[in-house]
Amino acid sequence: MKLGLIGAGRIGKLHGEIIAHQITGAHIEAVSDVRTDGLESWASSLGIKNVTNDYKDIMNNPEIKAVVICSSTNTHADLIIESAKAGKHIFCEKPIDFDVEKIQLALDTVKKAGVKLQIGFNRRFDHNFKKVQESVKNGDIGDVNIVKITSRDPAPPPVEYIKVSGGLFLDMMIHDFDMARFLSGSEVEEVFVNAAVLVDPAIGQAGDIDTAVVNLKFKNGAIGVIDNSRKAVYGYDQRVEVFGSKGMVLADNDYPSTVRIFTDGQVSGEKPEYFFLERYRDSYASELQAFVNAVRNNETPMVVGNDGLQPVLIGLAANKSVKEGRPVRVGEILAKYSI
Amino acid sequence: MKLGLIGAGRIGKLHGEIIAHQITGAHIEAVSDVRTDGLESWASSLGIKNVTNDYKDIMNNPEIKAVVICSSTNTHADLIIESAKAGKHIFCEKPIDFDVEKIQLALDTVKKAGVKLQIGFNRRFDHNFKKVQESVKNGDIGDVNIVKITSRDPAPPPVEYIKVSGGLFLDMMIHDFDMARFLSGSEVEEVFVNAAVLVDPAIGQAGDIDTAVVNLKFKNGAIGVIDNSRKAVYGYDQRVEVFGSKGMVLADNDYPSTVRIFTDGQVSGEKPEYFFLERYRDSYASELQAFVNAVRNNETPMVVGNDGLQPVLIGLAANKSVKEGRPVRVGEILAKYSI
Amino acid sequence: MKLGLIGAGRIGKLHGEIIAHQITGAHIEAVSDVRTDGLESWASSLGIKNVTNDYKDIMNNPEIKAVVICSSTNTHADLIIESAKAGKHIFCEKPIDFDVEKIQLALDTVKKAGVKLQIGFNRRFDHNFKKVQESVKNGDIGDVNIVKITSRDPAPPPVEYIKVSGGLFLDMMIHDFDMARFLSGSEVEEVFVNAAVLVDPAIGQAGDIDTAVVNLKFKNGAIGVIDNSRKAVYGYDQRVEVFGSKGMVLADNDYPSTVRIFTDGQVSGEKPEYFFLERYRDSYASELQAFVNAVRNNETPMVVGNDGLQPVLIGLAANKSVKEGRPVRVGEILAKYSI
Amino acid sequence: MKLGLIGAGRIGKLHGEIIAHQITGAHIEAVSDVRTDGLESWASSLGIKNVTNDYKDIMNNPEIKAVVICSSTNTHADLIIESAKAGKHIFCEKPIDFDVEKIQLALDTVKKAGVKLQIGFNRRFDHNFKKVQESVKNGDIGDVNIVKITSRDPAPPPVEYIKVSGGLFLDMMIHDFDMARFLSGSEVEEVFVNAAVLVDPAIGQAGDIDTAVVNLKFKNGAIGVIDNSRKAVYGYDQRVEVFGSKGMVLADNDYPSTVRIFTDGQVSGEKPEYFFLERYRDSYASELQAFVNAVRNNETPMVVGNDGLQPVLIGLAANKSVKEGRPVRVGEILAKYSI
Repeated sequence: MKLGLIGAGRIGKLHGEIIAHQITGAHIEAVSDVRTDGLESWASSLGIKNVTNDYKDIMNNPEIKAVVICSSTNTHADLIIESAKAGKHIFCEKPIDFDVEKIQLALDTVKKAGVKLQIGFNRRFDHNFKKVQESVKNGDIGDVNIVKITSRDPAPPPVEYIKVSGGLFLDMMIHDFDMARFLSGSEVEEVFVNAAVLVDPAIGQAGDIDTAVVNLKFKNGAIGVIDNSRKAVYGYDQRVEVFGSKGMVLADNDYPSTVRIFTDGQVSGEKPEYFFLERYRDSYASELQAFVNAVRNNETPMVVGNDGLQPVLIGLAANKSVKEGRPVRVGEILAKYSI
Repeated sequence: MKLGLIGAGRIGKLHGEIIAHQITGAHIEAVSDVRTDGLESWASSLGIKNVTNDYKDIMNNPEIKAVVICSSTNTHADLIIESAKAGKHIFCEKPIDFDVEKIQLALDTVKKAGVKLQIGFNRRFDHNFKKVQESVKNGDIGDVNIVKITSRDPAPPPVEYIKVSGGLFLDMMIHDFDMARFLSGSEVEEVFVNAAVLVDPAIGQAGDIDTAVVNLKFKNGAIGVIDNSRKAVYGYDQRVEVFGSKGMVLADNDYPSTVRIFTDGQVSGEKPEYFFLERYRDSYASELQAFVNAVRNNETPMVVGNDGLQPVLIGLAANKSVKEGRPVRVGEILAKYSI
Repeated sequence: MKLGLIGAGRIGKLHGEIIAHQITGAHIEAVSDVRTDGLESWASSLGIKNVTNDYKDIMNNPEIKAVVICSSTNTHADLIIESAKAGKHIFCEKPIDFDVEKIQLALDTVKKAGVKLQIGFNRRFDHNFKKVQESVKNGDIGDVNIVKITSRDPAPPPVEYIKVSGGLFLDMMIHDFDMARFLSGSEVEEVFVNAAVLVDPAIGQAGDIDTAVVNLKFKNGAIGVIDNSRKAVYGYDQRVEVFGSKGMVLADNDYPSTVRIFTDGQVSGEKPEYFFLERYRDSYASELQAFVNAVRNNETPMVVGNDGLQPVLIGLAANKSVKEGRPVRVGEILAKYSI
Repeated sequence: MKLGLIGAGRIGKLHGEIIAHQITGAHIEAVSDVRTDGLESWASSLGIKNVTNDYKDIMNNPEIKAVVICSSTNTHADLIIESAKAGKHIFCEKPIDFDVEKIQLALDTVKKAGVKLQIGFNRRFDHNFKKVQESVKNGDIGDVNIVKITSRDPAPPPVEYIKVSGGLFLDMMIHDFDMARFLSGSEVEEVFVNAAVLVDPAIGQAGDIDTAVVNLKFKNGAIGVIDNSRKAVYGYDQRVEVFGSKGMVLADNDYPSTVRIFTDGQVSGEKPEYFFLERYRDSYASELQAFVNAVRNNETPMVVGNDGLQPVLIGLAANKSVKEGRPVRVGEILAKYSI
């Protein structure tokens, strides 16, 4: 199966290398990026034959069956629409967009075109979280009562990035909103946020917050809580816990080694894996393989269009909760649109 | 030092036995309870000489320097007042009362009398939580950003008890409100509650909830979250975590043994200690020893009168948040009283 | 049930206090020690009425049903014999003696007298090791293949003590020989020792070793290994592991708390419990309660006379293995005696 | 740098795929195997241009700078000799041979030729064990006193394989002999074995044993113990521990996930990684990259010729210890040869 890779920045290159080395049943036929300096040699080292600065070359290539969209967020929705119209299956990095109407238009177009769309919520494919979700789904812990998600970055991104990031809820916690839906098996109905600027005042001056604890109410009656910080000095802190009527299932962090040192003073071990490239390395390969398999076997992808929409709605509700200091129903966000 | 024990129900007997066997520098001179059947033989087995059904015998005994109040909650405030007036130092089980004015009156009387008052928040003396608090206070983790407390009972009490318990926030989560103040080193300013009846509909019919996730805002800018459930089938779940600018400190549950069994199917270990008598056994001795030491050395107790008041205020704010579906400032509760 | 305590040194006092505070169904009627200075006040604080410097007062007291022998090792065998002849049940600290014939004579006398004898191998009552043994006995791990025991002290005793201790195998590893028999459910047939002086040359000059790894062959075909060191700077290291045809069961150390601190540099936790008084505190109460119960219910004690003999035989075989640099069968030791 | 791959069985293909996908600075120019059916398509999928059934084509190709020897054990020594004479650097799978004189001849030839030789003891590159060794080398635990290695396979190989395997010590425990040297930083002087057939009588009938506990004496005075079993039903059990004058460092197993499930009955988690392909996956890439780097930078490889010889000597001593039931010095093995 021939793939077209659109966008060859950091995440695009990561996907490209994974497809070349680890994915079976597909290869990249062409890569496009607005900046092509150095791209030829990168492509050639992976056996990618075609390099272009015009993504339309990919759209127009009838041999390319599916695209992998890794360009900047503001282009996602349009590229989804164009790809769908060109009859290509689509893997698209999260988020689809920050604008609900644009997302909805993209999803409608995909639906009409009958192509497959998978959103890049890679954490669903993580060995730990996938196992937790399977356990919940198997009924190991009965009915879900409480979902707890801890997600803390080792260090904040540059303030320049934060300014265009969409804010903590749409840039960082969006992964956790997806995880909350994934683990609970239910939609989020209401959001209440406690947020603060505790890491760096410059983040506050940029109009964002860097620390937040968010309460969620789920449709199935369960309650959730997510905490985010832009700066955990001990590394990337990625833990989840689901508590239910018959028990609890939880996932701890991953560590670079299991080594512990016992001395006169203490027992010490390693810090958690540093950041997402180390922590979620394998999940990127798994999500791409799942996409390739879904297309080849004509199956529904494991992360569909609505999975791209819902976390954005929750994030917008979270933004509103911060502004108005009250719980906000996700329905309030949708009500603004006649969807 | 001679002590008078007022109230010899379950917790009173527990304290009595601990004092007899584990506390140095004090013994129980007299015990009072409205029901004295069987009390004589219990007292005699511990070497307690005087048994009475009238607590005033204790108040009037000039040799008794301090009282340990373990009677029912509705008598706590009056007994504190009477003991203070009798010039006796006071150890009183939590909570002082559910009525803020009564608490305030009791604290004022204690202050005027110049006696010492220690409230029975035993968890502050727990080996795990004490260590966490010391670590926070030592500055190991820098400024506190997020406090997380998990507190789940293994099974709900009888519905008859729940009806008179004061409700989940004043009966169960009150310990966690105390812990939140203890660990953060700061007062709670605002409370938002997500609560539900997920364990037993009969609890809802009794007017209470059995599952809650509570967001807290602290005066020092930190954010907190507490989750409670009346029923964790795997045992008593008592964990805390404090996240700060320089790191994180956390305490896991205690387990009856460290044994793990590896088989063809899985690796398994024990469930956490079953309930508070097992889990907090040692903390009861520590808090009583600390009280005895404070009196003997004329030092301020480690849990003072205000530590009895604040968690009640937070609990009342939590009740209001449930009723009104919005964040409630603790100041709103105080404002109702001209305190 | 009235007990006589013979010997009130460190371990005698420990047992005395435990019996006074934690054991139900028995109390100490009399205590004897060759040195009685300070003993009166200690005894009185525990409600022990009779203090004597002549153990024969205990032997001659017809109300005393059982004795707890905590005097120095060289008196154990004689006191067992005398107690048995006086018709008293016997709890005796380990080891019975270093001389096999004396042990045998003591055991024979006990048998003839029909009294009960329990040896103070308290670790069999430890929460961790008891659980491991139960798991093995339940068949959780099938047939036992390999038994591994790690036992390291936090610091060596004074060299003066080492000179009279009987040596590492009879003083320290004797507990592990007992544990090996307890966990495997089988007798030890052969011993091979690798020993060295790695902690302190003065120990070597005193004729002992301070570090040893000992291989065991069991009658049931299993293989065992014990490692001892007189000095583990990180604390008392007490772990066991049993590997079998259907799995493995292991016990890790106990720790003073479950607290972990995550910082920029590392993740750290506490060192293991410091030494045997902390680590095995509860096991001392359990073994004494078990002894009292065995006497009261006329049941066989959980650690009988042969359990006192076998570890001494193994220890003597270990000594011989060090001297001769070869595996030594336990039968070789016995063969020297016409037992 | 162009490599020649000699032998494309299971381990050869594994190495081939790793080199193609994960190693920088080298690629496979040619692959040889006596059986070439299916080899063309495998090679072509990895971009390997030349496939041959005659390894001499590799020897004669002047562009090939180094060979990766993955053929059957009995060909290793000869291929090392031939490669060295052809001036090629050599990566060779363990063991070099079971015959000491053949090994010695191979090492001499390598020395004379001045080429680099790295032996495939991949576990030295494992994230856990490498970390342990670094910690020991850094002096974190002071002088090494005791080294403990647990190494158990999940299931025995077919008896047909066992018959030609060289026996447990040369086939399986050889990795642990290498690890013992690696972790202790010292040579093994003496070996004592307790061995048994506890897994499968057919293994005994084939003249081998399936369970062994082996004591080691090191030149630096430390003591070691290794235990092996051919069958740990709970998975591949790979743990090490080094105890020293200033502390202890240990490595636990790796697990597929960190997930734990708490239920009414127990707390359960995953079994260790199943077998060496899962457990040591990354170490294969690391050892090959290290080899490539050593050649390119003209540095001494991290596992040299003597590291291939010593474990064979220890294994032969172990065989002798089993046969003669006594400790055997490694020097006794060497003494048979005039090396």
